[in-house]
Amino acid sequence: MGSAAAASAGTATPLAARAGELDRGLAAAGCTALLVIASTARDPDLAPFVGPVHVHNSFLIAPRRGEACFGYLSPMERDEAARTGLRLLTPEVLDVARWARQGEPEEVLLANVLERALLLSGVAPGMRLALAGHAGAGLVQAVCARLGESEWTFVPGHHLLLDVRKGKIDAEVAEIRRVATATCEAMRALAPVLAAATVRDGELWLQEERLRVGVLRTVVAAAFALHGLEQPEGNIVAAGADAGVPHTSGADERVLRAGESIVVDLYPKGSLFADCTRTFCVGAPPPALAAAHAQVREVLAAAHAAALPCERGWALQEAACARFAEAGWPTPISQPGTTRGYVHGLGHGVGFDLHEYPSFRRHAGAEGILGVGDVFTLEPGLYDSEAGFGVRLEDLMMLGNDGPVNLTPLPYDLDPRAW
Amino acid sequence: MGSAAAASAGTATPLAARAGELDRGLAAAGCTALLVIASTARDPDLAPFVGPVHVHNSFLIAPRRGEACFGYLSPMERDEAARTGLRLLTPEVLDVARWARQGEPEEVLLANVLERALLLSGVAPGMRLALAGHAGAGLVQAVCARLGESEWTFVPGHHLLLDVRKGKIDAEVAEIRRVATATCEAMRALAPVLAAATVRDGELWLQEERLRVGVLRTVVAAAFALHGLEQPEGNIVAAGADAGVPHTSGADERVLRAGESIVVDLYPKGSLFADCTRTFCVGAPPPALAAAHAQVREVLAAAHAAALPCERGWALQEAACARFAEAGWPTPISQPGTTRGYVHGLGHGVGFDLHEYPSFRRHAGAEGILGVGDVFTLEPGLYDSEAGFGVRLEDLMMLGNDGPVNLTPLPYDLDPRAW
Repeated sequence: MGSAAAASAGTATPLAARAGELDRGLAAAGCTALLVIASTARDPDLAPFVGPVHVHNSFLIAPRRGEACFGYLSPMERDEAARTGLRLLTPEVLDVARWARQGEPEEVLLANVLERALLLSGVAPGMRLALAGHAGAGLVQAVCARLGESEWTFVPGHHLLLDVRKGKIDAEVAEIRRVATATCEAMRALAPVLAAATVRDGELWLQEERLRVGVLRTVVAAAFALHGLEQPEGNIVAAGADAGVPHTSGADERVLRAGESIVVDLYPKGSLFADCTRTFCVGAPPPALAAAHAQVREVLAAAHAAALPCERGWALQEAACARFAEAGWPTPISQPGTTRGYVHGLGHGVGFDLHEYPSFRRHAGAEGILGVGDVFTLEPGLYDSEAGFGVRLEDLMMLGNDGPVNLTPLPYDLDPRAW
Repeated sequence: MGSAAAASAGTATPLAARAGELDRGLAAAGCTALLVIASTARDPDLAPFVGPVHVHNSFLIAPRRGEACFGYLSPMERDEAARTGLRLLTPEVLDVARWARQGEPEEVLLANVLERALLLSGVAPGMRLALAGHAGAGLVQAVCARLGESEWTFVPGHHLLLDVRKGKIDAEVAEIRRVATATCEAMRALAPVLAAATVRDGELWLQEERLRVGVLRTVVAAAFALHGLEQPEGNIVAAGADAGVPHTSGADERVLRAGESIVVDLYPKGSLFADCTRTFCVGAPPPALAAAHAQVREVLAAAHAAALPCERGWALQEAACARFAEAGWPTPISQPGTTRGYVHGLGHGVGFDLHEYPSFRRHAGAEGILGVGDVFTLEPGLYDSEAGFGVRLEDLMMLGNDGPVNLTPLPYDLDPRAW
């Protein structure tokens, strides 16, 4: 655990920080090398090795105990490619122009390029490769079939990559922290909007207009725009009964009402993701909502205290379930498949993808053990769509050398006037 | 050409509008069915058949002359899946829970699910499939290898998909128009910022701060945020010598100067892309820049007049090159590989991807012929990085039944005060 984080001080490239972990993973999978194929270097399987560079079609070959090579296909991208700090396989070395001139289809071009690149990297035909990255399905199938004719064989490399990128290096933590700070700003921008709302016939109004979910979304998007962040997976702004179903994103035209819960779950991305949820209520919350909110706060506080290195994510989930069950709520342990009460996992790793390792699942292996350098959510919630409410409070945590750090230090209050 | 557009009135689903084109493409490729595998229904190979629905891991099987099926893996996404209007293969029918319970790795689960789905769709083992969509490379390779053991074979389906989605249906044109309108708003929001700048020692200042590229980017992002648009491919705000290289995106910290060209190329995405470029200059432009700008405007006007159904994109490029050459500028025809003068193609299709068909390349086949329903750019430019300038003017065009429509009707003036 955390070897990437531990190694990150003073290492030249993100790949160098992860080389040991990668070698061990390749050995365990019986593979000679890692091959990552990607249509952009922002690919979650490629960025952990090359850093935040702007390169399109590209690939990485990382032989076990050998020097990794970064290959790219467009000569115009040479400056960005050089920023990886890796040994480069240039379009000239790869003879890209020759295959293009011959009018070869893209799968022939890429297979020819990769064959040459593998040979130049010392990965001989017949060797077994862990395959990762994301690209067109037709292209991948055809390229692998061609390389298979030269006796290279493949095993899926996705889980190996998830293991290798579990612990974040310093530059990645800094980026996640930047995105998390902007997420806090967006959340803080919502509170005064909600606090300024007036109530007519139970509905919230703002400046002679009914206050709709879409207005809150615009405030959020404007806050992220200031930091150059986007929301590739969208967001959740779900009120009342919608808030009672964890995956309902909420309709823009929905008018907000006094006394209902408003779940706001934001997960923007810079070069990495952040993730944070708060729940608001304008006006007096019904007693059941207030009680659920207090209960979720208590479980979150306990999770904060327990999220330490070497702890298992599943152990934290069990503890959360025990606390909710004691308060009389159904949980996934007491009632598998329940849609009322506490209905999901306690957290998930966050980074290159919105959901990655560490895992909080029951049967997780090493990927279920929290380590230094890990970034993950803690997000207990209570849901009752029939009663018309849901509450979720989610913090983004980083396990540093000096202990856990809450990257989303925001108020937890339901009442936006308390923010 | 344009059969999708012609068929779109009154058809129930985007797939129905494209069924004829798809059948012809499958026949030409000697395939029995199309298989699209995607990690999101927003995949550019899947969205043209299912519309703008929010579904994660999913697939489409479209047999020749048969009924297409949309399969999805999460029971929580049933409502969104139903919005496709297609015959559904549900997680229950596909027995997803069984494979998940058995703890099978994702490639085994997906192969089992697809095998069942193909059989349910009447696509028997031994048949040849056009494969498209985008997913993890390791997953695709392993799944196809398993399906290959049951004698299904694959050919890359990417180009077939590009053909099928070339002509846009009404709902898609409406979405591109919405995104193009927001792009125009963003461009119009920049003009007053530039017009308000004062000049000190040749640098632009705004309210006691040097005016940097990053400020313009923030204005643009804020404008897009109001419309829920994102910029997954970024944007170009490039000044002076940077503007002289078409693919340089421009550094945020760069201070803008009087008399230099500022190329702003915006390509945001809603459920589809738009694309538009304007070039600004604060203060008097140097004569060479003013002349280049006038020349580009003239070539763009001629391209507008020539962009008619049944015209070849390459013919438009040839005409643009002839005009630039006549004015004494190098072009890709007179000097292949030139980096000074007119250095790129005249346009490209825009839609589910930023670059798709129609093609403006020399050797394009049917995909190089403009048709009703096509959406594409016209973007002549002149570049001279040694002289320190670049000019590009880009409009987004739609070929409607009543002729071409400019979706980006903005001023072309260099001077932001003229906007």
